[in-house]
Amino acid sequence: MSKTVEDLKNYLDRIKKYEHIETLLYWDMKTLVPKEGYDGHIDALTYFSAESFALLTSDELYEIVTDLASDEEYEKLDDTMKFIVKRMKKDLEKERRIPKDRYEAFVKAQAESGRAWEEAKEASDFSIFAPHLKKMIDFRVEMCGYTDPGEDVFEVLLEDHEESMDSATIDCLFEDLKSDLLPLLKKILAAPQPDDAKFREKFDINGQKKVQDMLLAYMGFRKEAGAVGESAHPFTLNFSSKDVRVTNHYRESYPVNAIYSAIHEGGHAIFEQNVNPEYDNTVAGSCRYMGVHESQSRFYENMLGLNKNFWIPIYDKLGELLPPFQEITLDEFYREVNHVRNSLIRIEADEVTYCFHIILRYEMEKAIFRDHVPVEELPAIWNQKMQDYLEITPENDAAGILQDTHWSDGSFGYFPSYLLGSIYDGMFLEQLEEELGCVDQILREGRISEITKWLNDQIHQYGSTRTPKEVIANVCGKVVSSKPLISYFTKKYTEIYNL
Amino acid sequence: MSKTVEDLKNYLDRIKKYEHIETLLYWDMKTLVPKEGYDGHIDALTYFSAESFALLTSDELYEIVTDLASDEEYEKLDDTMKFIVKRMKKDLEKERRIPKDRYEAFVKAQAESGRAWEEAKEASDFSIFAPHLKKMIDFRVEMCGYTDPGEDVFEVLLEDHEESMDSATIDCLFEDLKSDLLPLLKKILAAPQPDDAKFREKFDINGQKKVQDMLLAYMGFRKEAGAVGESAHPFTLNFSSKDVRVTNHYRESYPVNAIYSAIHEGGHAIFEQNVNPEYDNTVAGSCRYMGVHESQSRFYENMLGLNKNFWIPIYDKLGELLPPFQEITLDEFYREVNHVRNSLIRIEADEVTYCFHIILRYEMEKAIFRDHVPVEELPAIWNQKMQDYLEITPENDAAGILQDTHWSDGSFGYFPSYLLGSIYDGMFLEQLEEELGCVDQILREGRISEITKWLNDQIHQYGSTRTPKEVIANVCGKVVSSKPLISYFTKKYTEIYNL
Repeated sequence: MSKTVEDLKNYLDRIKKYEHIETLLYWDMKTLVPKEGYDGHIDALTYFSAESFALLTSDELYEIVTDLASDEEYEKLDDTMKFIVKRMKKDLEKERRIPKDRYEAFVKAQAESGRAWEEAKEASDFSIFAPHLKKMIDFRVEMCGYTDPGEDVFEVLLEDHEESMDSATIDCLFEDLKSDLLPLLKKILAAPQPDDAKFREKFDINGQKKVQDMLLAYMGFRKEAGAVGESAHPFTLNFSSKDVRVTNHYRESYPVNAIYSAIHEGGHAIFEQNVNPEYDNTVAGSCRYMGVHESQSRFYENMLGLNKNFWIPIYDKLGELLPPFQEITLDEFYREVNHVRNSLIRIEADEVTYCFHIILRYEMEKAIFRDHVPVEELPAIWNQKMQDYLEITPENDAAGILQDTHWSDGSFGYFPSYLLGSIYDGMFLEQLEEELGCVDQILREGRISEITKWLNDQIHQYGSTRTPKEVIANVCGKVVSSKPLISYFTKKYTEIYNL
Repeated sequence: MSKTVEDLKNYLDRIKKYEHIETLLYWDMKTLVPKEGYDGHIDALTYFSAESFALLTSDELYEIVTDLASDEEYEKLDDTMKFIVKRMKKDLEKERRIPKDRYEAFVKAQAESGRAWEEAKEASDFSIFAPHLKKMIDFRVEMCGYTDPGEDVFEVLLEDHEESMDSATIDCLFEDLKSDLLPLLKKILAAPQPDDAKFREKFDINGQKKVQDMLLAYMGFRKEAGAVGESAHPFTLNFSSKDVRVTNHYRESYPVNAIYSAIHEGGHAIFEQNVNPEYDNTVAGSCRYMGVHESQSRFYENMLGLNKNFWIPIYDKLGELLPPFQEITLDEFYREVNHVRNSLIRIEADEVTYCFHIILRYEMEKAIFRDHVPVEELPAIWNQKMQDYLEITPENDAAGILQDTHWSDGSFGYFPSYLLGSIYDGMFLEQLEEELGCVDQILREGRISEITKWLNDQIHQYGSTRTPKEVIANVCGKVVSSKPLISYFTKKYTEIYNL
């Protein structure tokens, strides 16, 4: 190993430690820290983020990376190192342009904004959050000004979350969906709906937790390399492929949400646990592409979890762990989990209306960054769009613009990833059936591990080394298109709703 | 504020951040980290401990402290700063003599030893732990050689955990107890014992957690400044007075253990939550004296929690949260929680045999550090002493020498603190009754908050600013003695067992 490669590895090893404890602080802030302990965590997070940022953007590291990227040295590297050096060079060139004090101020403001959002949501009072949202927008514009001077801010934000998918591509994909799905949705909403009374009973929370454990194990989540927590908003987080954690949020009534959150986050987690461990704690590791990430969580949640056959091998077990399900037939269960409603909350939405929850957010982010709409006007725009797409208006901001955590830490440009994920899923499902045969049959026979293995081989192992476009080209040999998803929806819901 | 005071405060502020994340890593390692994620935590802990040790022992900090300790500067300081400067000077003079690389090696070895102990306990195989125990002993001897050259190692270890209580004092206190309690214990064990069958039924674990929440709130634990977790071995940990966490370990049968662990750790936590917040994250904060600390956890657990009157206001609630208690009368409950048995596990022992569990460990530590008994011989000595004191021999090492975590991270000299705590409790109870009146009546009337307030005022608020001897002198105006504890035991158990 050359001296420079060794220097780089030492650097990566140090940076890893800072990222490790930043991840842990974040985990604890979201799952456990008491109200009065929050400030101590923010102080530590601010301090160590600044330290790691200084390490990452140091001249010394940049020189090491630049040396290794030079023709002579580069050719001697193995493929993983080649990727790491190239990727780091690209990232560092951007990140090094951010002044340290501004980065530190941003991290601190993010933490404060996160807390303000929680308070605002609890009080259903947008005005508590508004000044922080404004700050997050301004900070993002400022940061983009450093990293990508002269570029369109919204384009940079999209690229940050789903490289290789620009707004022109997304516009096109979303417009296709809108034009075909909106008529389908209107027909569905006009059709007779099932009675969900049996799902509104009391379902023991401890039983729901046991169902989550059962589902995670069934899907292939490895407990030796993972953990489970509780938080207001379910999420997945990873230290490396060896420590991947999911959270959930349980309520006594309507356990369908916690069950599908468990499957969703389980999908994210299985992805992270199966990235090539050689990539751990480098730019090659984890998965930096949010659309690809969401495609995996949503593949398990929707393409598999909403399929009746997924439940055939485990439906008795569900009834054992949560006895009220013994009074619900699998047909009734299947019908309810595929119940399409014009409802208010994104993370509780069915897979059809979900598309419009995302399109709404995508359009709002365009309004913020392209049309510079003042934050005060955003709740009204939100409510109008809900009315336009889903014919429903939030009774308050907690059920409207305050429902999601993303904007509270400045994660603008993230939302489209969810729908891109579903669009990819339409394509992956088609491809998987071509290669492995009928998914209904695989699931019915309890051979879900074959699907997990296919996803591991096709997608997960590559971590961050392939862009979304490359992933799709490699898995499907095609360019990205909304058509397979539209066909899936049309076939499935025409049948369910007898349209 | 003088420039030097400001410099000190800046240093303390930086050190606080490192200690904060070391605490968090420790918390997560004990409560949640998955098996494969352990190494990542050890790596980070080793790195940041070394960094904080370097900060703490830096020449610059030592110069600041030395400057402030000089006559001229010292007189200008407020009382808190005076304490901090004096204490830091004393501590730093010792700690600065430890070579950084040796300290780092020790921290790493501690973490590895902790893991080996867990494995050894699970497999009930002392040989897995033995080489690590040997390493911990050698490291402690080595560390004492740096910090207190020429001093008796065992004396240094005792002083580390309970300053102002040397082995001559402890010998005397423990011998008094032994000579009066061993005859009492023999009489108790010969008397008729209650039937505990009703306590061996199935008690819902979720219900036990709810009981814990109820008890913590009843005792005065503030949830806004605390959190609850699960671990193999219950413990309390604090980031500051604003974030104090307790853990517990639940089993379906015999919920008495989890109930009393909840009260015990709650006592520790109430102490930490009520230390003067101005002392937070300085040497004046928290409580560094383990005997004083244990006196508070054990005061709640034994002096209050084992008193029938403690339960009168909340016994119905207990039955609501854990229905099998509806079939158990308060008299039966009181009888069982004061059931004296010659059992194997310290943390499950009644308050009488508990004394002998500690005396055994104290004598074993003397054997290790004074008589240099090889580690291989320790299990046999343990088993022999169990036979001598409690007339029982562990069936395996998991139930014998491997049961406690303390030695796994080299915390020798800690065990005597538990019994010192009980000895202080005998004195505190006497004093409290002199000042507030009959404890039975206070508890019966649900006025436990008056007791908590008395302990806050008399003990908790002072944190680490008073040595154990000073605490006792201030609270009781007497020198430490085992007599009050012996009287308490004799009166209580003569009555319960009709001796």
